Amino acid sequence: MKEFTWPVRVYYEDTDAGGVVFYANYLKFFERARTEMLRSVGFEQDRLIIEQNLIFVVRSVKVEYLKPARFNDLLDVNAKVIEHKKTNFTFEQAITRHQDVLCTAEIRIACLDAQSMKPKLIPSAILEHLN
Amino acid sequence: MKEFTWPVRVYYEDTDAGGVVFYANYLKFFERARTEMLRSVGFEQDRLIIEQNLIFVVRSVKVEYLKPARFNDLLDVNAKVIEHKKTNFTFEQAITRHQDVLCTAEIRIACLDAQSMKPKLIPSAILEHLN
Amino acid sequence: MKEFTWPVRVYYEDTDAGGVVFYANYLKFFERARTEMLRSVGFEQDRLIIEQNLIFVVRSVKVEYLKPARFNDLLDVNAKVIEHKKTNFTFEQAITRHQDVLCTAEIRIACLDAQSMKPKLIPSAILEHLN
Amino acid sequence: MKEFTWPVRVYYEDTDAGGVVFYANYLKFFERARTEMLRSVGFEQDRLIIEQNLIFVVRSVKVEYLKPARFNDLLDVNAKVIEHKKTNFTFEQAITRHQDVLCTAEIRIACLDAQSMKPKLIPSAILEHLN
Repeated sequence: MKEFTWPVRVYYEDTDAGGVVFYANYLKFFERARTEMLRSVGFEQDRLIIEQNLIFVVRSVKVEYLKPARFNDLLDVNAKVIEHKKTNFTFEQAITRHQDVLCTAEIRIACLDAQSMKPKLIPSAILEHLN
Repeated sequence: MKEFTWPVRVYYEDTDAGGVVFYANYLKFFERARTEMLRSVGFEQDRLIIEQNLIFVVRSVKVEYLKPARFNDLLDVNAKVIEHKKTNFTFEQAITRHQDVLCTAEIRIACLDAQSMKPKLIPSAILEHLN
Repeated sequence: MKEFTWPVRVYYEDTDAGGVVFYANYLKFFERARTEMLRSVGFEQDRLIIEQNLIFVVRSVKVEYLKPARFNDLLDVNAKVIEHKKTNFTFEQAITRHQDVLCTAEIRIACLDAQSMKPKLIPSAILEHLN
Repeated sequence: MKEFTWPVRVYYEDTDAGGVVFYANYLKFFERARTEMLRSVGFEQDRLIIEQNLIFVVRSVKVEYLKPARFNDLLDVNAKVIEHKKTNFTFEQAITRHQDVLCTAEIRIACLDAQSMKPKLIPSAILEHLN
C-alpha cells in the first residue's frame, strides 16, 4: 500500500487550556493528510464534486491518543488505504513527532453521489492511485 | 434599541494553550448571540434561506479584547442593533462575566440574495423586531 | 447506569461546506455533554484541577456517523458511563435529533495527576455519582 | 516595512454550510502568518515563553471581509508591522487568492510578561527583524 505523509504545524488554534492539542483537532490533521494524498495523485475534491458528482464522507473513526502534541510542534501525519470495497475505503493513519507516535486512527470513508447522497462506486482511477 | 443576552459556557474546545479563550472563538460566541436574538423574535435562518432566499453575511468586525475568558467560565453575550441601512445593519456586542466586560465588538452584517449573493433589502419585519 | 442528556444547537461554526456538521465537531458536542454531566452532579473541572490535582484526558474514541446533523438543528447529546476501572472509565454517547440517532460513540477517559500527568485513582465520589 | 507571506490551503474544517470560509477562521489564518513570520526571523513562541518569559496576546482586531474564500482554495496570507510602541505592535494583514484581495485586517498585539500577564517591553531583536 502506498503511504503518504503530510507535515502539520501546531498553532494556538489547535491547542486547549490543558496545554495540548484538543482531542477533536487531530481529526482535522488526519483529514488534511487524506485531502493532500488525493491531491498528490491528481484528485481535487472540489472538482470531483462538480465533474464527477462525487463526495467523500466519513462513516466511522477509531482514534487512540497515546501522547499529547503541543503548541509549536511540527508533526507528520501519515495516511494509507488498508482496505477498500466498492463504495467505501478505510484509511490507517498516524501522527508522529520525530518518529514518536502520538496518535493512531482507522477512518472509514464512503463515496457518495453528491446530489442524492447515496453510495456510489469509487472511481477505479482513484483506487489505483491510492493502493 | 432592544438588547438581547445569551449565556455561553466556555469548554475546552474554546480555549488555547495560553489558558484562555482563543481570540477567534469570541467571534463564534458573538454569532451564537446574534442567531439566538433572531430566533427569539421568530426568525430561523435556515428557513430564511429557503422561504425568503435571504442569507446574512459578515462584512466587517472590530473587536477589543479587554480581559481573557477562561475554561469553565459562564459568560453573557449581548447583542443590539445600533445602526441599519437598506441592505446591512450593525450590531454592538459585548461579552461579560459577572458584569465584568471582557470583550466588545462592532459587527456589520449584510443581507444578501442567497442565490446571486447580491445585496438584498432587509425585510422590514426583521428590522422592526430587532430595533 | 445513569443517563444524562444535554441539548446542543448547531451553529454555522459547527458546519462545513458539505452543508452538514464537520466530523470533528461531534467530538466537541460529546465533550460538552460529559462536562455538563459532571457539573450536574457537583463536579466542576476547573476546581478538580486546583483542589484535587486531577485532570481527565481522552484516551480513545470510536465514532459511527449514521446521518448528518445540519445547520440550525437542535440535538440531544446523551452520555452514560458503561465501564470503569481504577484510573479510567468509558462513556457511551449518542447524538439524536427528534429520537433519530445521528451519531454514536464510545469514549474512554483517563484520570491523571494534573502535575505529573500519570494515572490517578478516580475519586469514588465521582464514580458514585456517575454510575 | 518587511512583508511576509504564508500560503494557506482551505480545508473542510475551515468552511461552513454557506459554502465559504467561516468568518472566525480567517483569524486563524492571520495568526498562522504572524507565527510563521516570527519563526522566519528566528523566534519560536514556545521558546520565547520559556526563555524570555514573554507571551504575545491579541488586543484588538479590525477585519474587512471583501470576497469569500472557498473550500480547496490556496490562499496567500500577508503580514507586516505598520506601527510599534514599547509594549505593543500593529500588523496589517491581507488574504489574497491569485492577487485578488479577499480579506484585510489590522491586528494589535501586546507583549506581556508570561507570569504576571502585565505589559512587557518588546525585545529590540524582534522589532529589528520585523521592521
